[in-house]
Amino acid sequence: MNFSELVKTRESVRKYLDKPVEREKIERCLEAARLAPSAHNSQPWEFIVVEEPLLREKVAKATFTELVRFNRFALNAPVLVVMLSWIPSLSVLTGSALKKRRFNLIDTGICAEHFCLQAAEEGLGSCILGWFDARKIGKLLNIPFPKKPVLVITLGYSAHSAIREKKRRSLDDMRKYLS
Amino acid sequence: MNFSELVKTRESVRKYLDKPVEREKIERCLEAARLAPSAHNSQPWEFIVVEEPLLREKVAKATFTELVRFNRFALNAPVLVVMLSWIPSLSVLTGSALKKRRFNLIDTGICAEHFCLQAAEEGLGSCILGWFDARKIGKLLNIPFPKKPVLVITLGYSAHSAIREKKRRSLDDMRKYLS
Repeated sequence: MNFSELVKTRESVRKYLDKPVEREKIERCLEAARLAPSAHNSQPWEFIVVEEPLLREKVAKATFTELVRFNRFALNAPVLVVMLSWIPSLSVLTGSALKKRRFNLIDTGICAEHFCLQAAEEGLGSCILGWFDARKIGKLLNIPFPKKPVLVITLGYSAHSAIREKKRRSLDDMRKYLS
Repeated sequence: MNFSELVKTRESVRKYLDKPVEREKIERCLEAARLAPSAHNSQPWEFIVVEEPLLREKVAKATFTELVRFNRFALNAPVLVVMLSWIPSLSVLTGSALKKRRFNLIDTGICAEHFCLQAAEEGLGSCILGWFDARKIGKLLNIPFPKKPVLVITLGYSAHSAIREKKRRSLDDMRKYLS
């Protein structure tokens, strides 16, 4: 699959088959994530792969509430990958403060997407969740300061038989050339 | 090229050939970026492709100072892509505030990396710059509030003949299974 095809194949999957994910596939997703670029090559990320059913259910339950239910599908994913991040160095802290942009958030986005694109290449579905109770998940997984859960990725075999058409603004609406 | 190979091929290129980049290659990079996922499919991004030499030089000069010179190489890139972002909706604003994570930064990281991975597939080199004077670039390009330059991507044909070995922490140092 070339990259243009892969980008069309990757979609946010919110319904999974009741089928375990092979460890070697997860490892290749993590390897793709490992090789992601980051500000000053700081690699401000760690991954906790939660497969154990009881713990997984607890983590999944921290991604939704009675009021905000759109992540409820996480209960149904066979694998949850909790991605941790932190401000990795004085230079990144200083840069982030001066430029008012948390560089480690940009970096974790890049890295998480490497994971999800590799997942698509492996025939797996995934979805990046940004909405969850980071304190609750931090306690459940004993995550020490200054590391914090920054994203949760659901992973598994998609229960959908076809890829959805992507709804996006047109290219004309989002790019301009100054030549 | 499969994705594992592409990830190894993509590297931050800081030295470019004096050779223009074909418009159709830039378009395919933008198309890959366009199809990136984002929180609530909010697509909080726009791209300004700066090719005109005088303007490009001014933008490049806003990415370094006498004191912080590591982006000086931007002067040498035949194309600069200024990526704009903003907080796209009340729901993303509320979510970002409640969760203390600027979701649109995560989204722009994902989207920028789609661009750079497609660039690698096209045989192009790129580098994502996070350090620059956003106010200066905003003025140069007449960017209206609330949009802001959030990343600058340098693009061109690499002047290096070989891919560098990537220096990263080991997988053992960044992942844990709870099974």
